[in-house]
Amino acid sequence: MDRFKRNERIAALVKVLCDNPNKMYSLNSFVELFGAAKSTISEDIVIAKSVFEELGLGVIETVPGAAGGVRFRATASAKESMDFFDKLSKKLSDPKRIITGGFLYMADIIYNPQIAYSAGKILASCFDWNGIKYVVTVETKGIPIALMTARAIGVPLVIARRDNRVTEGPTVNINFVSGSTGRIQTMSLSKRALERGAGVLIIDDFMKAGGTARGMMDLMKEFEAKVVGIGVLMTTVQPYDKLVNNYIPLMYLEEVDEKKGVIKIKPNHQLIR
Amino acid sequence: MDRFKRNERIAALVKVLCDNPNKMYSLNSFVELFGAAKSTISEDIVIAKSVFEELGLGVIETVPGAAGGVRFRATASAKESMDFFDKLSKKLSDPKRIITGGFLYMADIIYNPQIAYSAGKILASCFDWNGIKYVVTVETKGIPIALMTARAIGVPLVIARRDNRVTEGPTVNINFVSGSTGRIQTMSLSKRALERGAGVLIIDDFMKAGGTARGMMDLMKEFEAKVVGIGVLMTTVQPYDKLVNNYIPLMYLEEVDEKKGVIKIKPNHQLIR
Repeated sequence: MDRFKRNERIAALVKVLCDNPNKMYSLNSFVELFGAAKSTISEDIVIAKSVFEELGLGVIETVPGAAGGVRFRATASAKESMDFFDKLSKKLSDPKRIITGGFLYMADIIYNPQIAYSAGKILASCFDWNGIKYVVTVETKGIPIALMTARAIGVPLVIARRDNRVTEGPTVNINFVSGSTGRIQTMSLSKRALERGAGVLIIDDFMKAGGTARGMMDLMKEFEAKVVGIGVLMTTVQPYDKLVNNYIPLMYLEEVDEKKGVIKIKPNHQLIR
Repeated sequence: MDRFKRNERIAALVKVLCDNPNKMYSLNSFVELFGAAKSTISEDIVIAKSVFEELGLGVIETVPGAAGGVRFRATASAKESMDFFDKLSKKLSDPKRIITGGFLYMADIIYNPQIAYSAGKILASCFDWNGIKYVVTVETKGIPIALMTARAIGVPLVIARRDNRVTEGPTVNINFVSGSTGRIQTMSLSKRALERGAGVLIIDDFMKAGGTARGMMDLMKEFEAKVVGIGVLMTTVQPYDKLVNNYIPLMYLEEVDEKKGVIKIKPNHQLIR
């Protein structure tokens, strides 16, 4: 008699796969875990796969061949993305969020683990994961979203600092002009943080003129890294010409009118197909 | 006929629960999602619950009563904690990690999404979640672990900054003496980041003398917050007398000998019961 029933195997299999996004599991690892035949595990996977598809819970993918197996791809469905945009635009449009200087208070949103989780999944869904070896961000606000994006893709996160730290060893430093302050700032990254020549995805919370993203691209050049994409939670519509091209924003900030107390946000409709 | 089979319902139920740790779902929400009877859903839950228990995948908890329902508690089993400690101590004991000044390079470890996920679960498992309304940390290195701890407990994350930021609005600032640099530093938090009088759990990556943790406690006092606990990934054994009491470390750093290239780390055995 089998040690576990099909119901039980499926419950455990779903948990293990979803806990380790994009990690390839051989069928044999489940054969061992459950003490069941390979063909039985295959049937379990088909069942989980079909209900995930039907309810838009992400993609359980089987890959044939010797290096193959089964993995969970934590992508966001169109419905999930739409729900996310709806809720977030509503929350962010609250005039109480306007801060002197025309800034938008977003810390409670971008540090919220569930929001960061959804944003990370949606951002990850915007890019081809082949060739992404690291997700890169710069401290501080982009970290939660970048971490969740890295988790969805199943790669390490690299965080550039705004100054030199004694605990990082030898560093590579570059200067950049921050869009929000207009001042020259420094970005610093430990020399051992990245393998030379790796593909990286740059993730940040907010883009205005694109100075910080430009800085990250310059920093990546020093590591001979290949930037395969730039994703941000939100970008301002103005200035229209940014210092970087080919970035993907989840939302556009169209207007913050401090006097009238009006905030206008719209989702990037190209993402909801 | 039911829209979904038991297998399928269980696969989806596990995914939904595990995606939203510590969030209470009424049985009715699953009745609606699956178009099945409440008693059927109850039986589904019992099956998932028992296999989670048997394989140490976390706890599916049913709470009776009107406000009750079912939720997933993302706690770490003793086996998972031990595996984590084993792997991590081995990785961290590599002499190549020693940085001039006797520091330990840890960025690749503490920024790794899967390691942060496990560390967050284990740290969360050390505390009573009742009364925790926020997880609090200070930028930068503690953020990934603190985010994952907050996610496991199902509460928001609050991040104090090391300087004032124009995008945060009015802030509360305190000074503290950093253990690693010995210099007076500033910690800053937006006045709107925390509700007055809330219970908070302080999480950080590393503790030496406890100056930063002390600073966070002082900062919390300004918000009339009740600190229900302090958790850190690693603490040095020396100095034995820290500036805070009642902190829980996952690991102890016993020694970094720059000359001999020796690093000694031991897990907090009290956590593995």
